[in-house]
Amino acid sequence: MTVALSVAALTSLVNRILVSHGMSEDNAAIMSAIVVAVERDGPRSHGLFRVPGMVEMLKSGWVDGHAVPSVEDKAPGLVLVNAQNGFAQIALAAARSLLIEKTRSQGIGMLAIRNSHHFCALWPDVEPLAEHGLVALAFVNTRSYVVPAGGRARLYGTNPMAFACPRQDRPPMVWDQASAAMAHGEVLLARRHGKTLPAGVARDRDGRPTTDPDAMIQGGALLPFGAYKGSSIALMVEIMSAALTGGHFGFEDDNNPGGYTKNAGELVIAIDPEMSGGPLFRDRAEGLFRRVVENGNARLPGDRRHAERGRATEHGITLERAAYDALVRLSV
Amino acid sequence: MTVALSVAALTSLVNRILVSHGMSEDNAAIMSAIVVAVERDGPRSHGLFRVPGMVEMLKSGWVDGHAVPSVEDKAPGLVLVNAQNGFAQIALAAARSLLIEKTRSQGIGMLAIRNSHHFCALWPDVEPLAEHGLVALAFVNTRSYVVPAGGRARLYGTNPMAFACPRQDRPPMVWDQASAAMAHGEVLLARRHGKTLPAGVARDRDGRPTTDPDAMIQGGALLPFGAYKGSSIALMVEIMSAALTGGHFGFEDDNNPGGYTKNAGELVIAIDPEMSGGPLFRDRAEGLFRRVVENGNARLPGDRRHAERGRATEHGITLERAAYDALVRLSV
Repeated sequence: MTVALSVAALTSLVNRILVSHGMSEDNAAIMSAIVVAVERDGPRSHGLFRVPGMVEMLKSGWVDGHAVPSVEDKAPGLVLVNAQNGFAQIALAAARSLLIEKTRSQGIGMLAIRNSHHFCALWPDVEPLAEHGLVALAFVNTRSYVVPAGGRARLYGTNPMAFACPRQDRPPMVWDQASAAMAHGEVLLARRHGKTLPAGVARDRDGRPTTDPDAMIQGGALLPFGAYKGSSIALMVEIMSAALTGGHFGFEDDNNPGGYTKNAGELVIAIDPEMSGGPLFRDRAEGLFRRVVENGNARLPGDRRHAERGRATEHGITLERAAYDALVRLSV
Repeated sequence: MTVALSVAALTSLVNRILVSHGMSEDNAAIMSAIVVAVERDGPRSHGLFRVPGMVEMLKSGWVDGHAVPSVEDKAPGLVLVNAQNGFAQIALAAARSLLIEKTRSQGIGMLAIRNSHHFCALWPDVEPLAEHGLVALAFVNTRSYVVPAGGRARLYGTNPMAFACPRQDRPPMVWDQASAAMAHGEVLLARRHGKTLPAGVARDRDGRPTTDPDAMIQGGALLPFGAYKGSSIALMVEIMSAALTGGHFGFEDDNNPGGYTKNAGELVIAIDPEMSGGPLFRDRAEGLFRRVVENGNARLPGDRRHAERGRATEHGITLERAAYDALVRLSV
């Protein structure tokens, strides 16, 4: 049994859930729109599936749902934001227009968010910047889950990185990928559905290869994607999102009852592509994109998300009845 | 039979080779120092091994050895350089101090080089910025060699990306890695030494897996590292280094007799880490680095290069007698 809801109806439901568990109306409006956009486009491991976790974090006080970020105009190309222990998306929304303005006048701009929580996909953080015509990169760290190449135990977060590029008369090209061989959310989803993990993505607490999601979750580790090269990227993301923001490293763990996140950091870099690449930037990027989609079965990153978005806009978002009922129960 | 030379002696030899084949003294001083630094530190596939190719490119006129880059102070955070068909390293050297100055005042700065050639390792382009206390990223594209994930034929360059982070009382932590499963220089080196390639890194011209370096070189392709995630990174590097600089894409191939490179682009981003991360930036980064090296057999990227550097500084750089003789012949 499934239920189909419009984006607007589902956003309103998520909004009620967040407000009823201690989030301010302003913050809930931002978070519910993002959570539903991720449910609509995928990956679903980072959409509605995360809502009960967000509720737990709000209830326990691990995240402040009423946080009002403080924005500091630090330098002509740099904005610093203290998220005041709220979700990073709220901090980003508070500073986005200043980042865009700086990027347009300086050629490149950077936003460093600290004391924040990130418990969702990363692509919604860069897509709006590309919709404003900017190329954007984002880096965020998570709690320790990933073992460095050659190492024995979890150290890095799953450390996603996202990239967005504006397009000609189309939604931006956006990718968002974990530095881990598999996102932690996918491991949680596999456990929930009683599935095993693919070989070569996880270790158990003794450092042995495992395909059991529980063995990974209980003190095991995820491997970086692409061996030592993915490990280098995870290291870079850790530096970018924690050392460069003043946020916590993944390994700086503390007691966080009901908390799935670190009060970590996020770094966003935005570039004005016409200022450096000239007025033909989009034309030239389209020339590259065309060659990708004409090359055998290659696809552009994000194409599947755009297809899902189109389907959901036309037919609504389909949920299992039980999942929908659980959300309704959470909202009252 | 081997010969051991000091870094100074080898630099002087490479300098003579480049000058005698049509490079200006100023440009040869920059290029010889970089080529010998790469030979000293590794990977050797990108050091002296590249000198005969550089000579061919100079002799054929594909690269202008006398190029004087033109530097444009485009915006408070952005420097544009037209390399005037010379090597990218010359353009970078001409604009580095302006990039550093901009980064220190703006918080973040960007250098976009176009109409340039890159035929060497990428790490020497970011290490000096980290020695000046900055975090730096560099992106460069090459001629088409890499098939996109799911695709049939070469499209992306091997598209290396480099990252540098300053350290406390030590040389910077620097990594430099191709988006390809293997660097093209390593394929050339394997062919020269009559070795096969590892499984899973290359395809032949018909799209079939191959371990024969020649089959890859003759119209075949390299795979991206880490499947679709490495493919996304190769795509990003192509956009960063070509579309954002006005340089050529890897696939914009033309007749280039004696040319191993595209007249492509390079993008460098520099960040002032103390301005965004605060005065404890280096302390905190050291805390992360310490945890990496204490984790099983994990190593920091670049550790092997630093060990090689120490050995070469003490004992000189060891060359096969035949390779040394060939260099001497090239120098007269």
